[in-house]
Amino acid sequence: MANYLKLFAIPDSFQFRRGGQLEKGILAYETWGQLNEERSNAVFILTGLSADSHAASHAEHDTDGWWEFMIGPGKAIDTNQWFVICASSLGSCKGSTGPCSPNPKTNAPYRFDFPDLTLEDIANSSVALCQSLGITQLHALIGPSMGGMSALALLFNHKQYVRHLVHIASGMASPPFSTAIRSLQREVIRKDENFNKGYYDAANWPEEGMKFARKIGMLSYRSAKEWNERFPRSLKQIPEQPFGIEFPVESYLEHHANRFIHQFDPISYLYLSRAMDWFDGFKYASHKGANPLTGVALDSALVIGAKTDLLFPTELQQQLHQLLDTAGIKSELCLTDSIQGHDAFLVDQPVFTQLVGNYLNQTV
Amino acid sequence: MANYLKLFAIPDSFQFRRGGQLEKGILAYETWGQLNEERSNAVFILTGLSADSHAASHAEHDTDGWWEFMIGPGKAIDTNQWFVICASSLGSCKGSTGPCSPNPKTNAPYRFDFPDLTLEDIANSSVALCQSLGITQLHALIGPSMGGMSALALLFNHKQYVRHLVHIASGMASPPFSTAIRSLQREVIRKDENFNKGYYDAANWPEEGMKFARKIGMLSYRSAKEWNERFPRSLKQIPEQPFGIEFPVESYLEHHANRFIHQFDPISYLYLSRAMDWFDGFKYASHKGANPLTGVALDSALVIGAKTDLLFPTELQQQLHQLLDTAGIKSELCLTDSIQGHDAFLVDQPVFTQLVGNYLNQTV
Repeated sequence: MANYLKLFAIPDSFQFRRGGQLEKGILAYETWGQLNEERSNAVFILTGLSADSHAASHAEHDTDGWWEFMIGPGKAIDTNQWFVICASSLGSCKGSTGPCSPNPKTNAPYRFDFPDLTLEDIANSSVALCQSLGITQLHALIGPSMGGMSALALLFNHKQYVRHLVHIASGMASPPFSTAIRSLQREVIRKDENFNKGYYDAANWPEEGMKFARKIGMLSYRSAKEWNERFPRSLKQIPEQPFGIEFPVESYLEHHANRFIHQFDPISYLYLSRAMDWFDGFKYASHKGANPLTGVALDSALVIGAKTDLLFPTELQQQLHQLLDTAGIKSELCLTDSIQGHDAFLVDQPVFTQLVGNYLNQTV
Repeated sequence: MANYLKLFAIPDSFQFRRGGQLEKGILAYETWGQLNEERSNAVFILTGLSADSHAASHAEHDTDGWWEFMIGPGKAIDTNQWFVICASSLGSCKGSTGPCSPNPKTNAPYRFDFPDLTLEDIANSSVALCQSLGITQLHALIGPSMGGMSALALLFNHKQYVRHLVHIASGMASPPFSTAIRSLQREVIRKDENFNKGYYDAANWPEEGMKFARKIGMLSYRSAKEWNERFPRSLKQIPEQPFGIEFPVESYLEHHANRFIHQFDPISYLYLSRAMDWFDGFKYASHKGANPLTGVALDSALVIGAKTDLLFPTELQQQLHQLLDTAGIKSELCLTDSIQGHDAFLVDQPVFTQLVGNYLNQTV
């Protein structure tokens, strides 16, 4: 465990929404800034599927985080003003307890004995962490991608716990197109011979499965438009063997997929990926046709999407904005022209820092 | 060989554009209607990647074809008026010579000894077939998907051979996004253990590779919008095993992919798929920045695209329309609201029959 990670011991007998419970579970998290005396300046970040708690550098760990441009003193999420918390999701493999953690009953990894994970479990464990820090209400909850759905899960289950929401590149449920992509990713990991029903190890790693899953995912992270600009037809190379790498986009996929192989645990990936497809915000409606956001005590929300996002297209953000509005929650909808597709929030620094920064400033 | 197929013996020493030549090659084709005395009413259809010559039923074979609603007496492509020809592409596995055909030198299948195939080779062999029927000029050339690019290859190499073009769901070159999808399809076929560097047979067929390649392809054939309507969230099933089929879109992919496994030869698929990515209409420009369509003696063209097509997005049809226009060729651009994505030409009967029918009527 990296020494810059803070550890929260999840209270024993933590109940999973679909059954099963957790003993001796932990969440690894990091914080930036100071909690004020009133404990009223906390901002919690729920992450995307493969991100970890290291959202930005800090005194204990100066490596850039995955949202380095967004978080820090004087930045959009200004750590001079806010006490910022980011945890590795429950079920993930980045310090928090997940399927590859040792099961205290057996001392061997849980593998598929880990309880079925939902985004609600991620949300509930995150609230437990915040409460352990003495936070009775979050000033703001920020969730991009999977984190946006986890944020909704948190709101539905803790209706008074959040004052302001920043919901990015996400929605009330996964569209079938996104589920299809994730399903193919899960299938190719499970079918890798080395996956061996979950009994892989570092020496027999499902490398091909992880690599190919990443390539499939990459079809959906950026946009056809960005790729048109990035890969001119003229850059073809002579393949080393017939049907080997020849087109520029093939090298790109190969390079990034190779980097991913050992960056994430395969079973963790399956669990988190399925949790995204399971999430259905409409289940929280009191009856068919009712607005599931009724009764959620948000002061305001900012809903951001990118017009080039294939995975969470803008119809989803429009839908959420509409639901917030109908539920009487003041909501601002921003659909950006970013060409980086689903990844825009990680890449389009000027647009996203301005949107998030301005919004947080207004909430003071 | 099915007895309803007509066979054209490609003249020996047929030269492939990238080198290599073919002896004793054949094209399997079918025809509808009668060639008039002037031989001026011929309409040739260049197919998509996995389609064959059986575009519609006829007296010798009454099974529905892949474009049944489009071709026939009184239909949009009216066989009372036109002499319609459709061939299985050179390199395909549907009666025409391809990598799985016996190499006359060895009597064993060519496999990877088959010459590198380009869409130009498909175009040139198609022209040879038409010429063998006494056709000195086609009244119309119709190409959907891969067929649209093959049609352009034909125009660039036989500038006087076609009077009217119907170009559907295609473009001057594959965008990197489409190349990426096809690259992943080729990779997963090649990496199937049973593929065995091309030495598979019916008993050891790369089933998993073919199946998964089809699933990847299916991500791009319809549209996210159509899938939203087709797969309501409520239709989830209980999976037989953890991570088994649960979401409606998963059953759909599984069902269609299973049907495809033995429908196409794996090496043929690789050859045709790569040919699509190799095609680059801009190479026919006389110099950088010049219009490659200059000098092509078309009387008119109809360019159709669907706004939901991910594989050949409407920017491509707009681009082609613009190039035709600049080259002084009368061109009509129709971007349909069909929600069936790339497959719209196979499915959206009312829209496509009207567009193609009206256009052909105007060309008389």
